[in-house]
Amino acid sequence: MKNYAEQYHKETSVGLSENLSKTDRFVMYKTGPVLWVNHGMGIPSLSICLQECIKLMYYAETTDVTFMRLGTSGGLGVEPGTVVISTGAINEFLKPEYIQAVLGKKVKHDAILDKALSDELYECRRFVNTPVEKGITMGTDCFFEGQARLDGPFCDYSSEDATAFLRKLYELGVRNVEMECNCFAAITYRAGIRSTVL
Amino acid sequence: MKNYAEQYHKETSVGLSENLSKTDRFVMYKTGPVLWVNHGMGIPSLSICLQECIKLMYYAETTDVTFMRLGTSGGLGVEPGTVVISTGAINEFLKPEYIQAVLGKKVKHDAILDKALSDELYECRRFVNTPVEKGITMGTDCFFEGQARLDGPFCDYSSEDATAFLRKLYELGVRNVEMECNCFAAITYRAGIRSTVL
Repeated sequence: MKNYAEQYHKETSVGLSENLSKTDRFVMYKTGPVLWVNHGMGIPSLSICLQECIKLMYYAETTDVTFMRLGTSGGLGVEPGTVVISTGAINEFLKPEYIQAVLGKKVKHDAILDKALSDELYECRRFVNTPVEKGITMGTDCFFEGQARLDGPFCDYSSEDATAFLRKLYELGVRNVEMECNCFAAITYRAGIRSTVL
Repeated sequence: MKNYAEQYHKETSVGLSENLSKTDRFVMYKTGPVLWVNHGMGIPSLSICLQECIKLMYYAETTDVTFMRLGTSGGLGVEPGTVVISTGAINEFLKPEYIQAVLGKKVKHDAILDKALSDELYECRRFVNTPVEKGITMGTDCFFEGQARLDGPFCDYSSEDATAFLRKLYELGVRNVEMECNCFAAITYRAGIRSTVL
């Protein structure tokens, strides 16, 4: 995250802050109007970070806020190294939602990203020397069995089952898989903040 | 985690390794037969680390392995600073299980800790100057609404609802709340590794 902030600082000449996070769990750098924060792996870690950032934005009286999650992911039917700009987010049960427990009861939230923002970012592809594609992103809680890997310590399915599952995802329009997108989409949508994932 | 490893090294005079982790996401120290690994926040992060460690133990041909999760948690009806030794683990829907998506389908695993190990650790309480209690631990995915907090960015329940929920947990035998225990219990049980949480 520090590298991103430093690169932005060099390219724009906007000032770069120290690490502003007071815990050892996250880091936070500020370059002018842009805040760079890491969120750890998986939905629970992201959820803590995101909710704290929403509170921070509220108390800082910010306006016109946009949240973008940048991260590594596993591509699906795309060339290695491709940047996938998410047009939608689904959970590991292939639904565009984030299911949460509130006081022990199940609550569903719609996972909705800002399509205009995705389109806007997609238009920027001519400025980079990297393949860029648009597609749906799937977020899973389990890296191994949730993402159809065959090299985890447990694997009760066959290589054919895994391939069939990944093919099904591709046919649904999924182009990459990570571990946070649906929660990120749902929480930002609920907070009225436009957001995307890439 | 480094501090724990260093303390163990000082108290036992067993050699202390460098950080053995090759990624910047985890750290790993070895002091004789004891491995110290951090796992990040929440079930997905823990799940990756734990499954990698199980593979590591397998390839290292270890025997009689015990896994213990040490971490901060929110106490429930116990004096601040109390060490809670888990006698059981429940999820945020108050069930002793870990629900996982495997190739898009729901799979339930029993979350079972080793009671004899909890008892053994509880017997060690006379060696420390800290209050120690036994009790069930609840693991949640959401730090704010999942744990009945009133200071998150969203809160659709009243203070009375939150108190009633926490009272219900106490009556079920829950003495602390964190974000990993049920997955930790389920994965170690599935792997045939005795484990506990404190």
